[in-house]
Parts: sequence; C-alpha cells; structure tokens
Amino acid sequence: MASKRIGIVGGIGPSATVLYYQGLIGGYYDRMKDQHFPEIIIHSLNFEEINQYFEHDLGLLAEKLVGVVRGLQKSGCDFALFACNAMHMVYDDVNRNISLPMLNIIECVLGEVQKKQVRKVGLMGTTHIVRSGIYQRLLDMAGIECLLVDEEEQSWMMNAICQDLQRPSVPSSTLARFLRNVDDMGERGAEGLILACTDLPLVVTEENSSIPLFDSTQIHVKAALDLALGLRPLK
Amino acid sequence: MASKRIGIVGGIGPSATVLYYQGLIGGYYDRMKDQHFPEIIIHSLNFEEINQYFEHDLGLLAEKLVGVVRGLQKSGCDFALFACNAMHMVYDDVNRNISLPMLNIIECVLGEVQKKQVRKVGLMGTTHIVRSGIYQRLLDMAGIECLLVDEEEQSWMMNAICQDLQRPSVPSSTLARFLRNVDDMGERGAEGLILACTDLPLVVTEENSSIPLFDSTQIHVKAALDLALGLRPLK
Repeated sequence: MASKRIGIVGGIGPSATVLYYQGLIGGYYDRMKDQHFPEIIIHSLNFEEINQYFEHDLGLLAEKLVGVVRGLQKSGCDFALFACNAMHMVYDDVNRNISLPMLNIIECVLGEVQKKQVRKVGLMGTTHIVRSGIYQRLLDMAGIECLLVDEEEQSWMMNAICQDLQRPSVPSSTLARFLRNVDDMGERGAEGLILACTDLPLVVTEENSSIPLFDSTQIHVKAALDLALGLRPLK
Repeated sequence: MASKRIGIVGGIGPSATVLYYQGLIGGYYDRMKDQHFPEIIIHSLNFEEINQYFEHDLGLLAEKLVGVVRGLQKSGCDFALFACNAMHMVYDDVNRNISLPMLNIIECVLGEVQKKQVRKVGLMGTTHIVRSGIYQRLLDMAGIECLLVDEEEQSWMMNAICQDLQRPSVPSSTLARFLRNVDDMGERGAEGLILACTDLPLVVTEENSSIPLFDSTQIHVKAALDLALGLRPLK
C-alpha cells in the first residue's frame, strides 16, 4: 500500500525542519524495515520574514500560509502540517481558507498529555506561543494546570531560540540555563514538560531532563507518520 | 534583494537531501550573516520506487521527474536541481520537456575539475552512474583521464551506498573499505577524486581522504546558492 503524501511548511527554523524530515524517514524505516519512504514535500520559508509576521502582522502570516498550503495541495499532498508551534497561532484562520486536511500540533500534544493522565504540566516555547495562549486554552478546557517560566527567563529563552538554537552547535551556557529552567518546573510540581517549540529538542532531551517530556516535534512527527501510513483517519 | 526560490528533487537518498538543505541554509548564513534564508521547496521521493526505475525503466523515471519539476515550477521555484547524481542519467530527457531552468551537477563538477587543472581524476559513485558514462563523456571531451574502481569493488560499493549509507551510523568496516579504495586511486595516479554520489560525503571527507576531493554535493550546493543569490546567471 502506498503511503499518503506529506506536506510540510518548514524553515521556522531550518533545524526543526531537519528533525521532522529525519523523524519521518527514520520512523518509517523503524516500523516498516523497507525504503518505500512516503513522498514528502517541504516548503521551507524565509525565517526572518516569518518572524516579522509573528511580531507585527498575523493577518499577513495567515495569508502567506494559505498560499503555501494550497501549493502543497496542488503538488499532490494528502495532508499538511506546520513544522513550527508558533505558526499555529493562525491555524484556525488558515484552516478556514483551505480544503487540505491539516495536522494540528497542539491537539496531538494534548492527546499525549491526557493519555499519560498528567494534571500539572510545564510549558516552554517562544514568547509568541506562550503569550498567544493557544496551549493554555486547550489545557484549561481539559482541566490540566499549566506552569510557565517567569518573564525574565521567557525573554532570555526567546532570544536563545532565535539565535543560539539556529547555529550548528549550541553554547554550553545556553544549554545549562535551559536545564535550570527545567529543574525549576519540576520543583514547582510539574509532572511533565511540554516542549512547545520545534527547536527545543535540540537542547532539552529525555537524557538531560529531570522531568518527563512531551516533545511536540516528536509527537507531531509520530502522528504524521500514522496518518501517512493510514493508521489514523484523515479529518 | 530577495533570493530566488530553489526547487530540490530529493529523497535519493534522504541523508543526501539533508546535506543539501543544511548546506544551503548554512552556506547562506556564512555569506550573508542574516536569516533571510531563500525559500526552498524539497520534493522528497520514494527511494525504493526510484531505485526500481534506475534499474528497470529510465523512461518512467524521466516521466516521473518531469511531473515533479513541473510541480516545483507551479509552486513558484525559479530553478530546480536533482539532489542525486544518478537522476542525471535522464537529465537531458527531463530538460527537453520542462521550461524551468535546471542546475546540472555534472557540469558544475567539471567546471571545478577544470578550474583546478586536474588531468587525471578518480570517479566514485553508484553502479548506475558509473555504467551510464555521463561523467566520463564530459571528462573525455575536456581531455581529462578518468579512473574507476574494479568490478568487484564497484559491486560492493553499490550495495554499501544503498544499505549502510542510508542508516543513522555507518559501520567502521564499511568506512575502512571506502578509504582503501580512495588510497588505491591515489596510487594509480589520480590527482583528485570525484564523489559522484550525493551520499558519499557521509563516509569520504577532506579530513580522511588521502587525495583532494571534488565533492559533487558541496559543489552543487555552492552553485545553487550562487544562483539563488543572483551571483551567477540562470540559463
């Protein structure tokens, strides 16, 4: 049986896009033990241009993403996803204006948090995503308490994600400060931590984290592979 | 000035596609020191399906690739490239049937070999590419002598490229045998070695090779970035 064709809106940032691609290819091979990899079309965007939209014009962002998703549909993709949490700020606006099924990262993550019966969860991501409240709203509706880092750390973290995590190697002081924030979440009672930015797994991992992780990238990739292989239905 | 939009026909294999993507993004950053990365659309194909075409039906391969390149054009790409040497066996057939400018890897490599004034060069690649003679023809026309490995090593190498080089880590015995073949080329008088397969840089590198390399991936990526930045003209 042929896999479905996967559309990826990527480039925000490029390292995360590589994690998605490698995760899909590696995940396919681990499950199927053959190399009939699903066709994947990645449209990688201009990082700086999209960051400007995040900060100044979500309307233009939605417009741009509608065009990109339509392009993926014309190229034969069966479904698409944003390889970036922050793009989900305009998910509903985009979704209303396209007919291609989309796979929402926040719904995928909430599903995993509920499956593990976690009642209090930490949330780490860009300032865009934290301020937008898109995770908090869904968690709140599900009766799950959500912890954030304080404003000073949030502002440092945003800068580190946009700069240090886009380089080939991450400075050790940056890594250490991320891990101090993880420890702090645990001390405040978080039973798990949502990595709500597709670049965070570059620094916070199962190996170095003191509390269990909900890695949004990994959860999203697994769900996409399930969809491509027909193991879960397209909406 | 906005960069041109780059189309990549990828997935053959997936690791090479990652090298292209990372090479373009990293190369852009190294030159421009900003994150206005060019838009890149990657259409990653089914590895096993395309391998079947390589072996049994180049006509169907050309047909498939014409469709993929037209899709990249419809999605707004300004030019496209095959992130794979072997696909170039049908480059002329595809090129005749599309209007989007393409960047030919073999022409890019020949240009570098001529620039370094090399008169005798080794060639390593898949059996498809070596048997097709597409590199040898162009080298011959330029008066450059071309050395190949013997049939037994070629057959082993083909298998290693298709299997070991598609895994997350390459067995050390595989690496050692590749390097013995590189040494052998040097002893036979090669002043340089063309890595005519986009997966070979995963094992043979400037650091471990006893003779200078013409890494087709790196040369192709650099030329693509020059094109995207308007530093060389579109054909």
